[in-house]
Amino acid sequence: MSGDTLIVINPNSSQTVTDGIKLALDPLRRFGTPIRCLTLKEGPHGIENQRQADLTIGPMLRLAARQKDAAGYVIACFGDPGLHALRDQTALPALGIQEAGVMTALTLGQRFGVIAILPQSIPRHLRAFGSMGVLDRFAGDRALGLSVTDLADQNKSLDALIAAGKRLRDEDSADVLIMGCAGMAQYRTTLEHETGLPVVEPCQAAATMALGQIALNLSHKGTYDAG
Amino acid sequence: MSGDTLIVINPNSSQTVTDGIKLALDPLRRFGTPIRCLTLKEGPHGIENQRQADLTIGPMLRLAARQKDAAGYVIACFGDPGLHALRDQTALPALGIQEAGVMTALTLGQRFGVIAILPQSIPRHLRAFGSMGVLDRFAGDRALGLSVTDLADQNKSLDALIAAGKRLRDEDSADVLIMGCAGMAQYRTTLEHETGLPVVEPCQAAATMALGQIALNLSHKGTYDAG
Amino acid sequence: MSGDTLIVINPNSSQTVTDGIKLALDPLRRFGTPIRCLTLKEGPHGIENQRQADLTIGPMLRLAARQKDAAGYVIACFGDPGLHALRDQTALPALGIQEAGVMTALTLGQRFGVIAILPQSIPRHLRAFGSMGVLDRFAGDRALGLSVTDLADQNKSLDALIAAGKRLRDEDSADVLIMGCAGMAQYRTTLEHETGLPVVEPCQAAATMALGQIALNLSHKGTYDAG
Amino acid sequence: MSGDTLIVINPNSSQTVTDGIKLALDPLRRFGTPIRCLTLKEGPHGIENQRQADLTIGPMLRLAARQKDAAGYVIACFGDPGLHALRDQTALPALGIQEAGVMTALTLGQRFGVIAILPQSIPRHLRAFGSMGVLDRFAGDRALGLSVTDLADQNKSLDALIAAGKRLRDEDSADVLIMGCAGMAQYRTTLEHETGLPVVEPCQAAATMALGQIALNLSHKGTYDAG
Amino acid sequence: MSGDTLIVINPNSSQTVTDGIKLALDPLRRFGTPIRCLTLKEGPHGIENQRQADLTIGPMLRLAARQKDAAGYVIACFGDPGLHALRDQTALPALGIQEAGVMTALTLGQRFGVIAILPQSIPRHLRAFGSMGVLDRFAGDRALGLSVTDLADQNKSLDALIAAGKRLRDEDSADVLIMGCAGMAQYRTTLEHETGLPVVEPCQAAATMALGQIALNLSHKGTYDAG
Amino acid sequence: MSGDTLIVINPNSSQTVTDGIKLALDPLRRFGTPIRCLTLKEGPHGIENQRQADLTIGPMLRLAARQKDAAGYVIACFGDPGLHALRDQTALPALGIQEAGVMTALTLGQRFGVIAILPQSIPRHLRAFGSMGVLDRFAGDRALGLSVTDLADQNKSLDALIAAGKRLRDEDSADVLIMGCAGMAQYRTTLEHETGLPVVEPCQAAATMALGQIALNLSHKGTYDAG
Repeated sequence: MSGDTLIVINPNSSQTVTDGIKLALDPLRRFGTPIRCLTLKEGPHGIENQRQADLTIGPMLRLAARQKDAAGYVIACFGDPGLHALRDQTALPALGIQEAGVMTALTLGQRFGVIAILPQSIPRHLRAFGSMGVLDRFAGDRALGLSVTDLADQNKSLDALIAAGKRLRDEDSADVLIMGCAGMAQYRTTLEHETGLPVVEPCQAAATMALGQIALNLSHKGTYDAG
Repeated sequence: MSGDTLIVINPNSSQTVTDGIKLALDPLRRFGTPIRCLTLKEGPHGIENQRQADLTIGPMLRLAARQKDAAGYVIACFGDPGLHALRDQTALPALGIQEAGVMTALTLGQRFGVIAILPQSIPRHLRAFGSMGVLDRFAGDRALGLSVTDLADQNKSLDALIAAGKRLRDEDSADVLIMGCAGMAQYRTTLEHETGLPVVEPCQAAATMALGQIALNLSHKGTYDAG
Repeated sequence: MSGDTLIVINPNSSQTVTDGIKLALDPLRRFGTPIRCLTLKEGPHGIENQRQADLTIGPMLRLAARQKDAAGYVIACFGDPGLHALRDQTALPALGIQEAGVMTALTLGQRFGVIAILPQSIPRHLRAFGSMGVLDRFAGDRALGLSVTDLADQNKSLDALIAAGKRLRDEDSADVLIMGCAGMAQYRTTLEHETGLPVVEPCQAAATMALGQIALNLSHKGTYDAG
Repeated sequence: MSGDTLIVINPNSSQTVTDGIKLALDPLRRFGTPIRCLTLKEGPHGIENQRQADLTIGPMLRLAARQKDAAGYVIACFGDPGLHALRDQTALPALGIQEAGVMTALTLGQRFGVIAILPQSIPRHLRAFGSMGVLDRFAGDRALGLSVTDLADQNKSLDALIAAGKRLRDEDSADVLIMGCAGMAQYRTTLEHETGLPVVEPCQAAATMALGQIALNLSHKGTYDAG
Repeated sequence: MSGDTLIVINPNSSQTVTDGIKLALDPLRRFGTPIRCLTLKEGPHGIENQRQADLTIGPMLRLAARQKDAAGYVIACFGDPGLHALRDQTALPALGIQEAGVMTALTLGQRFGVIAILPQSIPRHLRAFGSMGVLDRFAGDRALGLSVTDLADQNKSLDALIAAGKRLRDEDSADVLIMGCAGMAQYRTTLEHETGLPVVEPCQAAATMALGQIALNLSHKGTYDAG
Repeated sequence: MSGDTLIVINPNSSQTVTDGIKLALDPLRRFGTPIRCLTLKEGPHGIENQRQADLTIGPMLRLAARQKDAAGYVIACFGDPGLHALRDQTALPALGIQEAGVMTALTLGQRFGVIAILPQSIPRHLRAFGSMGVLDRFAGDRALGLSVTDLADQNKSLDALIAAGKRLRDEDSADVLIMGCAGMAQYRTTLEHETGLPVVEPCQAAATMALGQIALNLSHKGTYDAG
């Protein structure tokens, strides 16, 4: 038996990021399904490598299991840690922002470019894109190249996003961009204006698909008792 | 300046198919955006080959242009005739049921199987899947093998859908199915029960993504004046 | 029953382009099959996007059907608008210059580069190359970046072709080039000399393959009554 | 300085195969270029593995170099032994029947099936198709399963060809067939009638492309002095 | 500073499996590097889905970190749980049996077939093969279809392995097999005899590559102080 | 019946290269299997194109067959000339340095870059990577751009290696490098230090895999009498 709320889990411990995710999802609240965004207290402040990502899976699965009113889930870390484990644990719709971000981008352009926070995340992204089977549509993946201090500076962050987006457009021939992180929705419109390209904020993409699957009783398990 | 309504165009002239599409989209009406389903009178009774598909594009584009209250479009023929032409014509969100059906299936299973109405459609589907760059995820495409008369018989249609679904599951290793046609949403749940696999009804998939893009002001043109 | 003439249709309305195609095919007249080059009066002056391309299909199919002496067809627009629709309409050999240009290039080098007239054509090309399944051999696609006025200037056109060819060779590692347009055969030899690479003029490639299929009674329909 | 004759080399020592190749090319003689078919006396009676194929390269290259009137070459063994070595040796057009057979098939259907003489050739074929980058279009490869004695029996050969072709069509979803051998052109029309699919005889495909490249002064070396 | 011993971690809690791994590695002891096989006590009795696999990562990483004499690691579960996390944690060579099994198989045949214990593991395997970028070489993945009780019966296990191997050879065209599990090395030779195909026992494959990387000071981190 | 020695064949006639290979394999002598490195006297001084590579196959196969104490073989030329022919000739393990180098690199990074001696080798490499099915993992291939004289100069060689490695890392996003030649092992550590990336010396990779296959009685023929 399922509940009525879309649960969005930020697997890092940064409330600022969770607040950014909430903001990103505001335009989807009119779809009528409550959305609750949670911060994983046991997570690292930011997920910087596969080891940190993998270690969030245990607590994330427990946090998810505790949400008795859940109608579906979004894992809100670009890297989708524990996505398939969560799908083993529940029949409710479970979306990852990386997977959904890519699938949405593929309806908006022919070659997608990704803006990563950190350069060391890029091989991890590529493993995921290979697993998704979408590398023929991949243009490039560029890191912001900012220190943690700089990331806290909104102007520096926006400038770096725009610079990375323009390199993806001009050097890698991307015609659609994906923000390779959660919590930066506030920059999306400016980034679209500056690059002239559609920009996918992946939490928005995942929540859209999750809300649709909830409304349609669509599950990776085939059929389930949606209560 | 855009309107407030999602326009769903059935490019064949069968009102029965359009009625099936309407039924399919009922669960999404709660998202708050009006949805209007149109039949293309100039279309053939059913689209059976690439030639028929291509010849719907001109009248479909004109029909789309006449919808002054449009906030976005869905082309509801598995084959997505004129999808990229429509994207040239408008900055409003424009989704095709084939593309969106595949992208949705890729979040529900690892290898998708397609149930085609007619065997001669399969090479056309493959060209589209190649263009989408998703062939590494493709399990198989099986036709119902029914005559037009048999298709009108609901029992025969359902039996053929189940038989094709089971062959895709057992012989082609599909773990998610896509209905390769519009207007058959009424069989979805039974097909899921009989095969144990998730089944994507592609009009539902496309409408979900379109409603999300409308809510998020997301466009293949990057930015647009959504009025 | 088929005729004895290869029909080459330029789906834009520019007689200059048709004249360039005629010139390109002169070396193949010694093969003994008459070749007739037609201009599609209903076409746009130049095909600049998918919408324009798709809208040529209806009149192109009618023009093709009227050629009672046809032994085969070439659609002479890089983009192959209506190619599969024409193959639905006739059992006679039907080649597109994009498809045949690529297949020919794959016998001349390992990575093909494409010179596009307009940058907005490139995503359309990529969809086609994906549909052909040849992206593992794709090096890059570069646009000339000329205005319509500049295109009329032969020196500027040639300079731009050479510059694009050298970028494809040096930055994208192409070792064979395809001219992504019809009607520029007169520049082929100079482009080969300046880049040191083989250059495929796609109308020549398609006509060669069509003349072979005519001589060999080879058809996409398997067997046909060649009269 | 080049000559005026297309040289077709059968790298096995069977004159019967060479005679079959000659017959296959008869319809192309009207293109006006003399065609001379040669048997490689140093070759094995039939090429059954990669070792035998590789050992033909030395004598094949010497035989090719001795043809002073050559305008271009075809290597007529499905496996294209020495094709790239020959391209190193000469700037004249040099085609292989495997490569050209595949490229031609890709203009006639969406998924190609190959009929191999021997099962042990199939991994070799797959390495070649991978090298060509066309595996997304590959349907299957089926061996005749005949002994050498049976191959000499025309009825048994034809029956086995038809059986393999039907399995490729029905079990592997091929919609175009390639004869994976030289010298069997006499069965092509019957195989097309029995399967309803287009059948590519690869010597015909390679000679067509070679005659076109000769007529057009098109070379893998870019430009060459065609004398 | 690194130690001198190859650490092989079985991430499930079955000592029988660990004993089977030890046996598999006996022929490699002559290479001169000590090999120590460990059982992860915190692991499940057998890893049956992604959730169980992911939950072994935390304790596996801690177990690995405690091995002060480690010169390198092998994770001995087909699925490679935590492989990239371990590579984040250490500069010592770290191999997974799935990855190394596939890479070894690619030197022994053109299309690899995998024998899975459980059918539900197959989508997980496919995600991994996609991530490795080797799907063009993938023939198929077949499960044994045995209950836990049957798996304890050596005769039933061997019969099921042979049956799966023959289906992979005959229906999926595999020419090399990979045992999709650890601890079954004792069946390898019989399976080779019965199928006529090379069979990769993946613990052997991973230990070989790890011992080589240890001997050669080769690390995913580039250079490291091997002490 | 097999012998006890790994035979490594340098198919060019340069004893300096063979000496470099010997040096590369020193760390693997502790594995307990004798390794004998042979120079192919009939080979060219350096293999510069496909023609030269193919012409080494005959004498290489004869040299291999004469080694009565062989337990396995490595062909030590990046290009693996005659690898599959050798596998036809013997059931003993037979590895090529290109194939094994790539398979090893795929366990050390996500995108491999190749340093070629000569630019004209690159299309040959690409054909091989396509045949291996690993192009989704390919980052780039860069030539040293040195004359033969410069290659004899160790400082110039090392500088060129480092420059090529850094371009592969910075422009092509490679995170693991493969030396696309034999006999340069002495530069490996410096190249790793300068680029920060793992560097695969392919003779080491192939010998490791061959020694493993010898120890494990693992053969491309499935089973063989290892004496």
